[in-house]
Amino acid sequence: MKKGILLILMLAAILPASAQRRPIIPQSRVVTDTIHSQVLKADCPYTVYLPKSYSVDTNKKYPILYLLHGMSSTHRDWFDRAQVKDVLDLLIASGEACEMIVVSPNAGGVPNDKVWNGYFDMPGWPYETFFYTELLPQVEAAYRVQSDKEHRAIAGLSMGGGGAASYAQRYPEMYCAAYIMSALMTIQGRTDATPRGADDLMGHLTKSVIDHNCIAYVKEADDARLQQLRTLAWFVDCGDDDFLLDLNLEFFQVMRDRGVPLQLRVRDGGHVWEYWQQALYMCLPFVSRNFAQ
Amino acid sequence: MKKGILLILMLAAILPASAQRRPIIPQSRVVTDTIHSQVLKADCPYTVYLPKSYSVDTNKKYPILYLLHGMSSTHRDWFDRAQVKDVLDLLIASGEACEMIVVSPNAGGVPNDKVWNGYFDMPGWPYETFFYTELLPQVEAAYRVQSDKEHRAIAGLSMGGGGAASYAQRYPEMYCAAYIMSALMTIQGRTDATPRGADDLMGHLTKSVIDHNCIAYVKEADDARLQQLRTLAWFVDCGDDDFLLDLNLEFFQVMRDRGVPLQLRVRDGGHVWEYWQQALYMCLPFVSRNFAQ
Amino acid sequence: MKKGILLILMLAAILPASAQRRPIIPQSRVVTDTIHSQVLKADCPYTVYLPKSYSVDTNKKYPILYLLHGMSSTHRDWFDRAQVKDVLDLLIASGEACEMIVVSPNAGGVPNDKVWNGYFDMPGWPYETFFYTELLPQVEAAYRVQSDKEHRAIAGLSMGGGGAASYAQRYPEMYCAAYIMSALMTIQGRTDATPRGADDLMGHLTKSVIDHNCIAYVKEADDARLQQLRTLAWFVDCGDDDFLLDLNLEFFQVMRDRGVPLQLRVRDGGHVWEYWQQALYMCLPFVSRNFAQ
Amino acid sequence: MKKGILLILMLAAILPASAQRRPIIPQSRVVTDTIHSQVLKADCPYTVYLPKSYSVDTNKKYPILYLLHGMSSTHRDWFDRAQVKDVLDLLIASGEACEMIVVSPNAGGVPNDKVWNGYFDMPGWPYETFFYTELLPQVEAAYRVQSDKEHRAIAGLSMGGGGAASYAQRYPEMYCAAYIMSALMTIQGRTDATPRGADDLMGHLTKSVIDHNCIAYVKEADDARLQQLRTLAWFVDCGDDDFLLDLNLEFFQVMRDRGVPLQLRVRDGGHVWEYWQQALYMCLPFVSRNFAQ
Repeated sequence: MKKGILLILMLAAILPASAQRRPIIPQSRVVTDTIHSQVLKADCPYTVYLPKSYSVDTNKKYPILYLLHGMSSTHRDWFDRAQVKDVLDLLIASGEACEMIVVSPNAGGVPNDKVWNGYFDMPGWPYETFFYTELLPQVEAAYRVQSDKEHRAIAGLSMGGGGAASYAQRYPEMYCAAYIMSALMTIQGRTDATPRGADDLMGHLTKSVIDHNCIAYVKEADDARLQQLRTLAWFVDCGDDDFLLDLNLEFFQVMRDRGVPLQLRVRDGGHVWEYWQQALYMCLPFVSRNFAQ
Repeated sequence: MKKGILLILMLAAILPASAQRRPIIPQSRVVTDTIHSQVLKADCPYTVYLPKSYSVDTNKKYPILYLLHGMSSTHRDWFDRAQVKDVLDLLIASGEACEMIVVSPNAGGVPNDKVWNGYFDMPGWPYETFFYTELLPQVEAAYRVQSDKEHRAIAGLSMGGGGAASYAQRYPEMYCAAYIMSALMTIQGRTDATPRGADDLMGHLTKSVIDHNCIAYVKEADDARLQQLRTLAWFVDCGDDDFLLDLNLEFFQVMRDRGVPLQLRVRDGGHVWEYWQQALYMCLPFVSRNFAQ
Repeated sequence: MKKGILLILMLAAILPASAQRRPIIPQSRVVTDTIHSQVLKADCPYTVYLPKSYSVDTNKKYPILYLLHGMSSTHRDWFDRAQVKDVLDLLIASGEACEMIVVSPNAGGVPNDKVWNGYFDMPGWPYETFFYTELLPQVEAAYRVQSDKEHRAIAGLSMGGGGAASYAQRYPEMYCAAYIMSALMTIQGRTDATPRGADDLMGHLTKSVIDHNCIAYVKEADDARLQQLRTLAWFVDCGDDDFLLDLNLEFFQVMRDRGVPLQLRVRDGGHVWEYWQQALYMCLPFVSRNFAQ
Repeated sequence: MKKGILLILMLAAILPASAQRRPIIPQSRVVTDTIHSQVLKADCPYTVYLPKSYSVDTNKKYPILYLLHGMSSTHRDWFDRAQVKDVLDLLIASGEACEMIVVSPNAGGVPNDKVWNGYFDMPGWPYETFFYTELLPQVEAAYRVQSDKEHRAIAGLSMGGGGAASYAQRYPEMYCAAYIMSALMTIQGRTDATPRGADDLMGHLTKSVIDHNCIAYVKEADDARLQQLRTLAWFVDCGDDDFLLDLNLEFFQVMRDRGVPLQLRVRDGGHVWEYWQQALYMCLPFVSRNFAQ
């Protein structure tokens, strides 16, 4: 009897607040699924956040955010190390973010001779082709997604920040917003790279990053392309102790100088998960505001 | 060669920013240690944060924060689920928190017939006696701690918030600051409890919490005790969706009305780790400001 | 010549950033206008914020926020002392608030035998009648306002916080959101008041505030009324040092306990303009999110 | 009688919260005083913030912050347009800032043939000489100031941000901390300027700013000077829409690259007072933490 009360407290402490007054209530969920890629010839896992109403409002479609991880990380890390679910639940509850689906695909792992990292096409690892011809279409068919530019955003950190920036630049017709964190915009001071062989996976990655220099891309863009870049909402966020800060500042300056409106924030911190978890408090409301209603 | 650059980037992404320019640099550390308690007749683990300078400045002593977890949790959870190390590293780097030692002792685990939860003395589990006669003296002997009121603070969440509040109330000569989160100040609407037997561990916990009602304690305090309570800096922090909110508001009101200055914050959120991780951004600077220089 | 550059800098320092690159650009404006009230038999000034696009997009209609001042203040104070224009310009530029019209009508001034304060009908000063039959219709006719519940919000501080709460309670069909700051919900500990005569303006105000006790209103609401209250988004915001805190907490608790969802924030501070200026950073995005698209 | 209660409310709304429970209590004060400068041959006003305890604790000395305004502004603007008193009262009450004296001297006004702007020595207007030989010594004699490096900080915005940066660079033995906002570090793209005559006040200002290029100063600093710069705590804060952003970023990069630790924040906003008022919430705690205890 006395115990009963504490059991209630204990449950209350474990369940979300919203569950505390009604015995059964829909909850947001995080699930990991896998696609077998024909182009990569590999099983490719991805982790998905499904909002609270997803399981009950079974005709509703949702906007989608692609959330890209960095080098040496995987599809799990945004969820395990930056608490995407907890932050998004909180922001949806307060109204600061809208209900959305978040997908974090795998493009990495601890680098070695067999483990590829990177978001671009490389000899033997056409990841970008996989992303646009397999992952995105299959995800948006498997889940109830509003599959158009006005309801699709992209974000990422470090290598995935460069990936998000480059995807948003080259596929502006696909995204309404891009939130770029601590991004590997290129390799500082490098203009080319030559992998030492087919199995030099890091060499291929290096080359692919240099070949997709996000800063040069804006410098070289013609008016038509610039006009397309202006159809997205852009946000750059990088810590004052981050070793990639200067690349992110230069990207901001070039974009601004070429007339593409964008936001910049430099907050306290380095190239660490704590920085990116805090970034979610700006990123998720930002993409929410830019999804069409 | 090309690869070399990315390896550097990769290391940079893994190591803290401060490590990126020098090959070897002291880092903060989190270690878990164990005390064999005579009074509890059990091995009692605790987790400790040691600041960056600890290993190099080997004569320096540090202020200490005791950080108490909630029911069903253990000494690991503040570190695993609220990223104490990452947040404190960041705040020390910016100067918002000072270097300190943080200790989170175990007073819980998933409740069952063998697993005790609670910070107070109970028949068969004199935890408070253990805390003051064994844990605290041994920790402050094992590590280089400035062992006085002016350099010792206490904080906690839920059951540990009630523990921190009650410890601070009854041992005001030991702490300079108390930061109380989402605290189980008592069991709402209860004035007593009778455990069903020696092995009704939850019944004993229920009774111990009611017996240490933090709100009643202030109401009943005489002038001398109130004067002692005023020697600490107090802070209450509880989410607007928290099922314990009303108890925390009442505690604040009673303290204020009896002339004990204290701060109150009600932020967005419920009884969840994300709330407490964000609380660290206020808690750690708060205790830092209240440690004597 | 040399001077030319500094003149540019000087202009840049005076003009908003958006004006710095193009010679002529629409700007948001703050204007004060006057209505002659038949019911009050007085000229009643109000101050209006018109967003940047208002003067160029001459067919566009805007959502509207009524922003109520406190006792002893006037229609100017939200703009002069809490920088509504600057904050709203900033939040619109970043996308955190939408373009809206903000109206602050006069319901006060330094109290004396001739100067009325208050938002309710009083003998000789039927302000509420004025508000709903003259001010609101005339303002919404004079400016391009989306005149419906889904595009109208109300907010206020202190006496105006109580006014906003009571208006939102009693006219739930007119507002989609209410943001209540440091509100005079009633006079603590009072259930009635008798003015000493027709010219006891403060006595009439006292009585009108007690008669429109916002806490009692919720306690006494029937199910139909509660259901109407749930059609608004509610937000309560009050400082931890505010002498009206307890009334605001009780309002929150009563609303929550009767099943009307609402947000609560208690931040650092007292009954001061600095608190309310900071509140705008939450209030304006909150009402923006609750305006229908 | 009824009225009595509202009068109390009214007073409560006007007086600070801390005054609400006791009839007489010391308050912080803002006063404007004047020095007759021999070197400038002019009366030079300055505005001072004196903390709450100043009038009662009559032997206590305080740390001091010099807070510099921008072009076209005067000694009043930090107080009138960025609410220095209200923000500092709030931060002192919460413990986030310490009690300090803040001085804002006049170095400007609406520019015309008679009104000088600027913090450097110019032919006919040796302001820097005035600052160091008259203003600072007289202020620190007139008020109870802890007159040493460890208790003196400097901050400023725009022209005053450049002034603060340059003063801190060239007088590092005098300040423990510098907080630089939206600073006019130099005139972009200029290396020299020639005033058109003795009464070309703006031309003299232009030249003086270029001659005190804060970025070039760091580039050219020898090791001894760099070592001195490292004895201050530095902070740079500039909005993402500010037309001076690039100069501030370059200053940060040069300082960092030459091994002078400093913080950088880029927040949302332009060259506007709202940005600088928000900056006070970081600036005042920052200088407080860097004052010696």
